[in-house]
Amino acid sequence: MRVRNKTWAEPLIESNRDRIVTKGADIRGQWQNRFERNQPINIEVGMGKGQFIINMAKKYPEQNFIGIEVQKSVAAIALKNSLDMDIQLPNLQFLYADGAELTDYFENGEINKVYLNFSDPWPKTRHEKRRLTFKTFLKVYETILVDHGELEFKTDNMGLFEFSLTSLNNYGMTYEGVWLNLHDSSENEQNVETEYEQKFSAMGQPIYKLKAHF
Amino acid sequence: MRVRNKTWAEPLIESNRDRIVTKGADIRGQWQNRFERNQPINIEVGMGKGQFIINMAKKYPEQNFIGIEVQKSVAAIALKNSLDMDIQLPNLQFLYADGAELTDYFENGEINKVYLNFSDPWPKTRHEKRRLTFKTFLKVYETILVDHGELEFKTDNMGLFEFSLTSLNNYGMTYEGVWLNLHDSSENEQNVETEYEQKFSAMGQPIYKLKAHF
Repeated sequence: MRVRNKTWAEPLIESNRDRIVTKGADIRGQWQNRFERNQPINIEVGMGKGQFIINMAKKYPEQNFIGIEVQKSVAAIALKNSLDMDIQLPNLQFLYADGAELTDYFENGEINKVYLNFSDPWPKTRHEKRRLTFKTFLKVYETILVDHGELEFKTDNMGLFEFSLTSLNNYGMTYEGVWLNLHDSSENEQNVETEYEQKFSAMGQPIYKLKAHF
Repeated sequence: MRVRNKTWAEPLIESNRDRIVTKGADIRGQWQNRFERNQPINIEVGMGKGQFIINMAKKYPEQNFIGIEVQKSVAAIALKNSLDMDIQLPNLQFLYADGAELTDYFENGEINKVYLNFSDPWPKTRHEKRRLTFKTFLKVYETILVDHGELEFKTDNMGLFEFSLTSLNNYGMTYEGVWLNLHDSSENEQNVETEYEQKFSAMGQPIYKLKAHF
């Protein structure tokens, strides 16, 4: 999503340096120190306004979470949303960074699981390299993940889902499950929605999900 | 599909022994002798009334085709439908047989490609072993196929498609393409429909397709 620059974004980030990282390279290999407890770290690449990762952190206190967003203003909105919560979330951090450079910000094996939700579909074939399930991105995830680390991917975009099914398979990933209408399946019982997902599934759009590991 | 026994089935089969095989084991390794020309042999497992395989044989004279059906009366209907055609199809044979026993009827590597169309979904988990994309069936296809032999699979059943995506991936097969709405994709230009597909896609039901190789 594109948003206008927020004049309050920069000061909010500055006064919450304990919650948001803007120079990921400085923290590489030391992310556990940013959390209250030493426990598995899961990341969402492209968290948008953060509804998913905030609710995941709330739901699973025994795991750590990092929401990553490439747009500073959007990362600031997620930060603001987490501050507006009625509870503190000592297992949640934010990172303002580009998904293609994750190996600069995380050490090999530092991450437990990667979530991709409603990524930009980049529908034109000449843009397929920009899709977050393209093989170069999978290589990045594999590098920062633990052995056999998991990837969970949701989208409402049929073309992106078709592409991703083939891309992950061709990379050699092992599927754990595929859902072609997530909200109408038993998998939905544990589903944590994104803002976008809430809006589009309410309009009757099927949500696709793929769970796989390296 | 279930059909009533046809009294004409047996005599029709008897008088067309050059077109239909009922004892596949006798022909094992010698299928090329049943065709006019020595060219790649493709099979459809569960051909039903034969619309797909008959039209494939018509469309691709440079390949050989075998339609396989486990119900004798249904195999006889396919045979009748091919005889009713305005042209001869020297590249088409039928086999009345059970898909689980294909290794009894075909030698290792005798087959070029396997087609599965609208197979019985067997929706109950306790029946998953009966699904034609279950790993034991994949093992059978792999055995009778040439190296890196292809499998093309179509269905309108979401649950069966979800299962099959995971099953083929877990078996180690390589996806060539996935289509979640075949009839609305460019892949449809070369699509040959089955009777069932024609009926259900006309009702707006999306058709799923998966193309993969071992």
